[in-house]
Amino acid sequence: MQQEITRVALDAMGGDNAPGELVKGAVDAVNGRSDIKVLLVGQQDVVEKELKQYSYPKEQIEVVHAEEVIETAEPPVNAIRKKKQSSIVVGMNMVKQKEADAFVSAGSSGAILVGGQVIVGRIRGIERPPLAPLIPTEKGVSLLIDCGANVDARASHLVQFAKMGSIYMENVLGIKNPRVAIVNIGAEEEKGNALVKETFPLLKECTDINFVGSIEAREIPHGEADVIVCEAFVGNVILKLYEGLAGTLVGAIKKGMMSTLRSKIGAALALPALKSTLKTFDASQYGGAPLLGLNGLVVKTHGSAKAKEVTNSIYQCVTFKEQDINGKIKKNILGSAEQEGM
Amino acid sequence: MQQEITRVALDAMGGDNAPGELVKGAVDAVNGRSDIKVLLVGQQDVVEKELKQYSYPKEQIEVVHAEEVIETAEPPVNAIRKKKQSSIVVGMNMVKQKEADAFVSAGSSGAILVGGQVIVGRIRGIERPPLAPLIPTEKGVSLLIDCGANVDARASHLVQFAKMGSIYMENVLGIKNPRVAIVNIGAEEEKGNALVKETFPLLKECTDINFVGSIEAREIPHGEADVIVCEAFVGNVILKLYEGLAGTLVGAIKKGMMSTLRSKIGAALALPALKSTLKTFDASQYGGAPLLGLNGLVVKTHGSAKAKEVTNSIYQCVTFKEQDINGKIKKNILGSAEQEGM
Repeated sequence: MQQEITRVALDAMGGDNAPGELVKGAVDAVNGRSDIKVLLVGQQDVVEKELKQYSYPKEQIEVVHAEEVIETAEPPVNAIRKKKQSSIVVGMNMVKQKEADAFVSAGSSGAILVGGQVIVGRIRGIERPPLAPLIPTEKGVSLLIDCGANVDARASHLVQFAKMGSIYMENVLGIKNPRVAIVNIGAEEEKGNALVKETFPLLKECTDINFVGSIEAREIPHGEADVIVCEAFVGNVILKLYEGLAGTLVGAIKKGMMSTLRSKIGAALALPALKSTLKTFDASQYGGAPLLGLNGLVVKTHGSAKAKEVTNSIYQCVTFKEQDINGKIKKNILGSAEQEGM
Repeated sequence: MQQEITRVALDAMGGDNAPGELVKGAVDAVNGRSDIKVLLVGQQDVVEKELKQYSYPKEQIEVVHAEEVIETAEPPVNAIRKKKQSSIVVGMNMVKQKEADAFVSAGSSGAILVGGQVIVGRIRGIERPPLAPLIPTEKGVSLLIDCGANVDARASHLVQFAKMGSIYMENVLGIKNPRVAIVNIGAEEEKGNALVKETFPLLKECTDINFVGSIEAREIPHGEADVIVCEAFVGNVILKLYEGLAGTLVGAIKKGMMSTLRSKIGAALALPALKSTLKTFDASQYGGAPLLGLNGLVVKTHGSAKAKEVTNSIYQCVTFKEQDINGKIKKNILGSAEQEGM
């Protein structure tokens, strides 16, 4: 049997550490697995100069020239429309044209969200493509869905998020019968805002997901659910607060430990163990956030992504393809919808 | 000049540590200051039995009998309506009848929010009374307003929250010209959901507050604003995630430090300094959350409040009265509204 190759277009120009860490992540990925081809999208001379430092199987990396770069501060809709030769637009067009199975970028979130919808396009019947990062918990990771740009969502969107999230966690992360919960301000069904109250009974009716009810934000770090459903504004607040608070606490702890001579000695002894603990709460360890429900796969990695996160994101794309996530989304979520002529 | 006495009705029966820590908190409060009278509301025999352990100026504590107790799990509206002899209803009625200046409770949040509106009542012209806890940051504390039960708020509510929060921080916490920000998913004015987009320009127009624009959740722990405005669903998510994540991280750190012999020795040396650092991130250090905009003051303390938080909450009521916060709210927020006949 011939080995199936997953072709990942990688934005070599996006993110704080471009192109160095992106190119290194690509090289590490192909040196680790032979079933991948990385299409490095970016300014050819810049990318090739980086590549020269490394040894790797030449047939597994190809440079695709893209003259322009979309900056983080650019208004996304404009950037996608005008910069046709940018690494994001070129990479996404490759997914659209089926020249790549997935596109990975650490660049402008806004441009990636807009490009995903406008260029790659939604699966027919999917109302909105949610951005779904993994967040670290005491017990492992949970999928937070949606953290994207789709604010003011409707109940039907949240139901699709729940189903897509469940498929992703079961098949990409290998969590059997993942627990799906909706973010709420109390555990009871009658609690919540208008959106949650409308969505809750719809989720209860879904026979194809393991809906466990409401989750209060307090319980999220304890890993009380595998798929955490919310609309994008709330999801963004959760994700950003997670990152901000973890960073602040770690900073305060380090400062606190340097405050006395006694604690300084203690710190020197305890820090290695402490660092490995805190690493499990570092979201960047877990690869990028998929934008689900598209005709192909788009993965947004952290702007500050280093090579390891890039490599992990590329491997994530392989699993996504191998497990035929989009096929499962079409079958499980849209099976009935298609019969209704949607 | 005769000393002005602040009369605080304290729910002796509410919270995880009732009545012990509540009664102790009351005793500590009156032993610390002579300008306070605490009206301990609860089952007389139970409360008096606790009181007997302590020595304190007898004229500063009075027990007010309330036969019933509202449990945390009870539906709030029902509980307030039916349990007329509960400590919460009796205590709130004392505020309504001007027999007490304030009511402090660690009991059911729902019952306190409902009772505040139904029994104590809103200041005429205030559309919604927000619950406004202080949250710890790198630089001190910020007021998170609203974390209450008022989900699905309107823009006009958020504008009142901003003004009331600003008055509270300036006069109770003593922060000059407090920076007011609205929780958003990006820094630009055009970012946000429908509610934030509608509220942002209204806040910009307010000449009586120091509006500094949007705040992303990531920046909250860094103390980038003194008054953080949001609707209650988002506020509740922020508050609960703050508590949950801080607790989880501290737990993980302790566990991490016990993982090797070397780190155990380090931990023993560093823990005292570490503990004092982490204490500044413990929300319970900062007293209770006021329910603002009522005809009187209602303060909700943590369900797990210990004596120290109870004492701090009682002192908070004194400052609230001394600074005439409700007078300032009426003058500054409703001055123009009253002229318009509201």
